[in-house]
Amino acid sequence: MKINVNYKDFTASYLFSDIAKRVKEFKENNPEAQVISLGIGDVTQPLTPSVLKALHKAVDEMGVAESFKGYGPEQGYAFLRETIAKHAYLDRGIQVSAEDIFVSDGTKSDIGNFQELFGADCRIAVTDPVYPVYVDSNAMSGRAGKWTGSQWSNIIYLPCTKENDFVPELPKEVPNCIYLCYPNNPTGSVLTKEQLKVWVDYAKANKSIILYDAAYEAYIQDPSLPHSIYEIEGADEVAVEFRSFSKTAGFTGLRCGYVVVPKKVVGYDDEGNTFSLKDMWNRRQTTKFNGCPYIVQKAAEAIYSPEGQEEIQALVKGYMANAQKILATLKDMGLQACGGEHAPYIWITTPNNMPSWDFFQLLLDKAHVVSTPGMGFGLSGEGYVRLTAFANSKNVDEALKRIAKVLA
Amino acid sequence: MKINVNYKDFTASYLFSDIAKRVKEFKENNPEAQVISLGIGDVTQPLTPSVLKALHKAVDEMGVAESFKGYGPEQGYAFLRETIAKHAYLDRGIQVSAEDIFVSDGTKSDIGNFQELFGADCRIAVTDPVYPVYVDSNAMSGRAGKWTGSQWSNIIYLPCTKENDFVPELPKEVPNCIYLCYPNNPTGSVLTKEQLKVWVDYAKANKSIILYDAAYEAYIQDPSLPHSIYEIEGADEVAVEFRSFSKTAGFTGLRCGYVVVPKKVVGYDDEGNTFSLKDMWNRRQTTKFNGCPYIVQKAAEAIYSPEGQEEIQALVKGYMANAQKILATLKDMGLQACGGEHAPYIWITTPNNMPSWDFFQLLLDKAHVVSTPGMGFGLSGEGYVRLTAFANSKNVDEALKRIAKVLA
Repeated sequence: MKINVNYKDFTASYLFSDIAKRVKEFKENNPEAQVISLGIGDVTQPLTPSVLKALHKAVDEMGVAESFKGYGPEQGYAFLRETIAKHAYLDRGIQVSAEDIFVSDGTKSDIGNFQELFGADCRIAVTDPVYPVYVDSNAMSGRAGKWTGSQWSNIIYLPCTKENDFVPELPKEVPNCIYLCYPNNPTGSVLTKEQLKVWVDYAKANKSIILYDAAYEAYIQDPSLPHSIYEIEGADEVAVEFRSFSKTAGFTGLRCGYVVVPKKVVGYDDEGNTFSLKDMWNRRQTTKFNGCPYIVQKAAEAIYSPEGQEEIQALVKGYMANAQKILATLKDMGLQACGGEHAPYIWITTPNNMPSWDFFQLLLDKAHVVSTPGMGFGLSGEGYVRLTAFANSKNVDEALKRIAKVLA
Repeated sequence: MKINVNYKDFTASYLFSDIAKRVKEFKENNPEAQVISLGIGDVTQPLTPSVLKALHKAVDEMGVAESFKGYGPEQGYAFLRETIAKHAYLDRGIQVSAEDIFVSDGTKSDIGNFQELFGADCRIAVTDPVYPVYVDSNAMSGRAGKWTGSQWSNIIYLPCTKENDFVPELPKEVPNCIYLCYPNNPTGSVLTKEQLKVWVDYAKANKSIILYDAAYEAYIQDPSLPHSIYEIEGADEVAVEFRSFSKTAGFTGLRCGYVVVPKKVVGYDDEGNTFSLKDMWNRRQTTKFNGCPYIVQKAAEAIYSPEGQEEIQALVKGYMANAQKILATLKDMGLQACGGEHAPYIWITTPNNMPSWDFFQLLLDKAHVVSTPGMGFGLSGEGYVRLTAFANSKNVDEALKRIAKVLA
């Protein structure tokens, strides 16, 4: 049996598995250390009362033949798709149809799988640093070219660094597919409507598509910033939007997300014929996916009730209080840091140009704090580390105290 | 943006979506009809008490910070992988390591995604008729060749019909990857250990791999029949086994399955170097999947308790009573039918050589019974329809009465 040789170039494992392994080793060698994780972007606060109530109720339904649910629609139940369309979009004046929403087990799956619809020779552009799944999933399909030791030969990288205030410039070569994530993981940066419009217009002019990862939209504090790419005119012709309940409602362990594929978004074959990406995604999902669990979809629906909304806004508020504290305290220590204002991520310039994996190891060894090395997100992440705001506030305080001591 | 042109050949939609659409239309035109579904293989009985108890308990854990679970291991929690290894394998004398088990959201996802590890020019063999996901997922990746109107040009089909007693013969051309499903969907046929050994030996001799779908192993009544391909010596060098809680424990709406990828199973690159499929699958899953929900994994664990086992054996017993009744009654009507002895599927020869979609429509229009047309499973399924045993027994009785009337 011949393997997919694109896997041969993956010498390293998935970034977060790699970090988990290093942390495990540290803990084994230092069993007394109280390690605090500000590394992987995983929530720590429990599910909220409305969500728990909906889960228990749905479990009870599954115990009675009359209300038992077997296979559900691969696209998600209408009750959830309609609730999302109304509350996440229509009530905010954004036109999105429930028919164009596909519910899933999370954005990692959706965005990892979506590239299956792309032709083998599509050129991909990503901001750099970037969430590794965009790049790795394309590399596994052979679309990334060759690994040159620090980058892939066929990916168009859009550097986002201090030098350009973390705002990507338009690429010199035209990509077919552009991955954008705002509020950004890992830099915590945002785009204004005007800045985002530049990309929508560019995609329209070049028949490109935008894969817009809006997993962190709930963390936006400034009402003028766009929560959805569909706030930009014409985006429904060129953009697919990925959203998740993970960071919004603490669902990282419950697994639910969705993708909006507007019916106007098309791709082309070699003869220039157009094909609906929505129809293609529907075919992909009905063939290789069997829907998100009913009980999880009922839990997701519950966050849109008035009580549910209050609860998850309190969750986000708590994490954002951490973010602001981390940002302010690091700056007081004399570190350069950004993000943390509309995102749960703080992006820190390492002191004295220290390589990011070295600073990661220093924080782990000396402060017993887990960060994420910027280099893990791409070459332009070298010289940075990411901290997350998802720990509880006591651990955040303790972590900051220890970091201050290490850097003193 | 250029599309994956392999999607262009998919004129029809996924089989079961297609049937669902026809049934929906019939119901709209005949609102008074009491339609009984013996079509899609979906369970109807509620989750059992042990499973419900485990779900409620796990939901409660998610409501408390100390026991809350965020991201879990992409491979599944050790508690579930170890429980599966012990109860599903080791206790039955079958050597499978928990380290080689990957828990997922179900076999449809696993088996649809597994082909991503294969080279673009791998030759695929499937029994015919066959569960459409094996073929469609390979076709989407371009491995199936061209659609000729009734078959794919590059797939090696292994006909299973009355003429060979539904036992596939070894292929004339050597395939790289062989999909086998026993007890079989859709024919309900089984392989003895001796018959299965022929395939394991063939795969070893030809450096092929076997993708063994054992989703229906719980329905085996004859203790001499193999539940796992790893009961055959040497299978751990050439076979990957897919299993599901869907049909075993009524989890179709809860979504949990697993795949065993023994560390000895390898693929090759063009230079003949070997690569561990387990490592490749681990890389695929950690990159594009974020684990099965914790609460669902706790539910799956619960079926292995003594009470859990009693409950799910009662579930299977109930469905098998239906199967035996359907098989016997159809034979009494003078129809040719098989399966139903070690599988929840009954495979019926259509009367008077009627095309399978016609017989499907006749049963829907006149008996208001949903079946699955054999042609939907492949060319060798023409002249057959499949009935499932998953309805409740009252509906089974009613459906059989109506079918008898139509055929009288």
